Amino acid sequence: MDYRFSDRMSTMRGSAIREIFKFAADPEVISLAGGNPAPELFPNEELADIAAELLRNQPVLSLQYGVTEGYTPLREAVKARLKRVEHIDNADDEVIIVSGGQQGIELSAKALVNEGDTVIVEEPSFIGALNAFRSYNAHLAGVKMDEDGMNIASLEKTVAENKNAKLIYTIPTFQNPMGTTMSLEKRKAVYEIARKNNLIIIEDNPYGDLTFDGTKVPTIKSMDVDGRVIYCGSFSKILAPGLRIGFVCANQAIVQKIVVGKQISDVHTAMLPQLLAYEYMTRFDLDAAIVKMRANYAHKCRTMLDAIARDFPADVTCTRPNGGLFIWCDLGHGVDTQALAATCAANKVVYVPGSTFMVDMDKPSSALRLNYSTMSDERIGEGIRRLGAIFSEVVR
Amino acid sequence: MDYRFSDRMSTMRGSAIREIFKFAADPEVISLAGGNPAPELFPNEELADIAAELLRNQPVLSLQYGVTEGYTPLREAVKARLKRVEHIDNADDEVIIVSGGQQGIELSAKALVNEGDTVIVEEPSFIGALNAFRSYNAHLAGVKMDEDGMNIASLEKTVAENKNAKLIYTIPTFQNPMGTTMSLEKRKAVYEIARKNNLIIIEDNPYGDLTFDGTKVPTIKSMDVDGRVIYCGSFSKILAPGLRIGFVCANQAIVQKIVVGKQISDVHTAMLPQLLAYEYMTRFDLDAAIVKMRANYAHKCRTMLDAIARDFPADVTCTRPNGGLFIWCDLGHGVDTQALAATCAANKVVYVPGSTFMVDMDKPSSALRLNYSTMSDERIGEGIRRLGAIFSEVVR
Repeated sequence: MDYRFSDRMSTMRGSAIREIFKFAADPEVISLAGGNPAPELFPNEELADIAAELLRNQPVLSLQYGVTEGYTPLREAVKARLKRVEHIDNADDEVIIVSGGQQGIELSAKALVNEGDTVIVEEPSFIGALNAFRSYNAHLAGVKMDEDGMNIASLEKTVAENKNAKLIYTIPTFQNPMGTTMSLEKRKAVYEIARKNNLIIIEDNPYGDLTFDGTKVPTIKSMDVDGRVIYCGSFSKILAPGLRIGFVCANQAIVQKIVVGKQISDVHTAMLPQLLAYEYMTRFDLDAAIVKMRANYAHKCRTMLDAIARDFPADVTCTRPNGGLFIWCDLGHGVDTQALAATCAANKVVYVPGSTFMVDMDKPSSALRLNYSTMSDERIGEGIRRLGAIFSEVVR
Repeated sequence: MDYRFSDRMSTMRGSAIREIFKFAADPEVISLAGGNPAPELFPNEELADIAAELLRNQPVLSLQYGVTEGYTPLREAVKARLKRVEHIDNADDEVIIVSGGQQGIELSAKALVNEGDTVIVEEPSFIGALNAFRSYNAHLAGVKMDEDGMNIASLEKTVAENKNAKLIYTIPTFQNPMGTTMSLEKRKAVYEIARKNNLIIIEDNPYGDLTFDGTKVPTIKSMDVDGRVIYCGSFSKILAPGLRIGFVCANQAIVQKIVVGKQISDVHTAMLPQLLAYEYMTRFDLDAAIVKMRANYAHKCRTMLDAIARDFPADVTCTRPNGGLFIWCDLGHGVDTQALAATCAANKVVYVPGSTFMVDMDKPSSALRLNYSTMSDERIGEGIRRLGAIFSEVVR
């Protein structure tokens, strides 16, 4: 039959990244396109013991329906950690457990965005968030990015030009796809602009713990005096993404709406993954595990940057992240990295083209995103060597 | 600050059922308001062994990101079971794993429903589905129910009066909240009406396996020759709801849209619960476990019906289910069961008022839903005795 799909889904495309993942299944292909955490860091033995114990001794808790808000001890543990690590502590805030960081963004959009509302986003930004806003038929307005986060003049101009703007979506720390971090001054400026213009800020911070040198710029949420910031966090990068455990910390009035939306979406997040996250945090030293992750990713990032310095043409610009999973490169010279991706794939190396992360995905981009988190030094070196050979042909 | 929530969430109320759940936390209260499966039937020891083994031996599969469509062996196992048990077998169909049955309905709505589209629903019907449609600003049109499913004249009238109708949502087997089953003739009639009017049917079948006497009326999906039926299933009632594993079987063009919607919603369903469902199905005899569940629920349902016959006023009408988890009673006499619920709660017994399941939730209803699945014979008897004492006061 001839299906009449909803307008929102008729225009929606699948993530180009996930399409590249399918291609990357070939073991000869070196994929610099992923965003997966390093599997050697998963505490699988510890989780095996906990899972068996929980299922044996607490079958009802592990397997029966739970409450939409999430497992209460996990919510309390998340609150305590947010207070200790991110200085997020406001009596009017609540925490809800969600099915991965993506669901936190999606439910925030559901609670706030009407058709035609403008959502102000960094450009480039995380495609999963952009698509969540698109699925509610929001208008996306992009803000230019500097090495230290949003360009404030561009943000002010975008706010002035979009009177129906409702929220600002930002990944201030180790941004996806750029790997850059917004300075403290700019965080304060973004918050003030939001305040003046009655805008909500969604602060997405899945990578914040993965700081290479241990330093942290204060979260925007930690400066939030009037319940304006929705903070989205995740266990995907500090424990394991397959568990699909994220959380939202926001003013309780917002969390109440998100709870109603979540009840409609999936009733509650699966119990066993919630219990695993809680028991792991309680019995083991998550912070010590994170210190190991930081060293792992810092080494891989440095390895990739060294390889880039050696093998890429000199005028390719790259960010130098202080944390997270990604490096952003710009080939300039009017190169279309979407078109170039096919040549690279034929040479057994893949990346994510910059256009994927833009408001207008059809506009060619000379930039691209590279990921280093799941690979050996040798694969990183070989991947960059392959890319460098191709880039040297097109960038002269 | 003064929050500007989206229109869809401004009007949305939390589920009354879940509010009653909170009240029912008092151990002295006998809750006939739930819909939970019997926890003594959870195969927790088997799942404990499987979980420990998977996490120990397959850490990447268990803990890394998975694909949006779901774990391929589980999708294949679901397809094989649908073919064997429900005679659902169409080369153009696909299966996607979702985070519980609720997400299957929600994503179907997301893929199909535009603001203002009419969704035709049984009245009464499952509030989780009604709220999913409401959250997309659909217009709900209710169809009257007989003991053997939808009143076909009412369905025809509703279709004729709603030219912008896009889909019919039905729970033909052991309906929630009525416990009734649509006859084969009516299933054929509903399918023909959908066909004539270019409507999609969402067939929600979470209870189908829980047939007391082993007999099954063919699913509407098994008659689907033109890819018109979206079949939503779940492991919540045959394995464990806390795992949040459901599935959708539909034409691949529809499933493709649902995949894009799911990618935005939660990327993919948690891996460990998917693997537990698959390994349990593969290593153990799920059908034998279901035979035990049928006997358990058949006994409890009979116990409740016997108690009703003994303790309720003679002119209270009740359905006599052949499966599932619910009995639907009507007190008649202009009784408002929403108002009466407070009296019952004060007497330590709770049910779900009929108005909860209606298109217009503000209209008083003399009906109510009773659940028997998680209680001992004694609690069932005592709960019905308490209700009977109150009902005898108001129904004379």
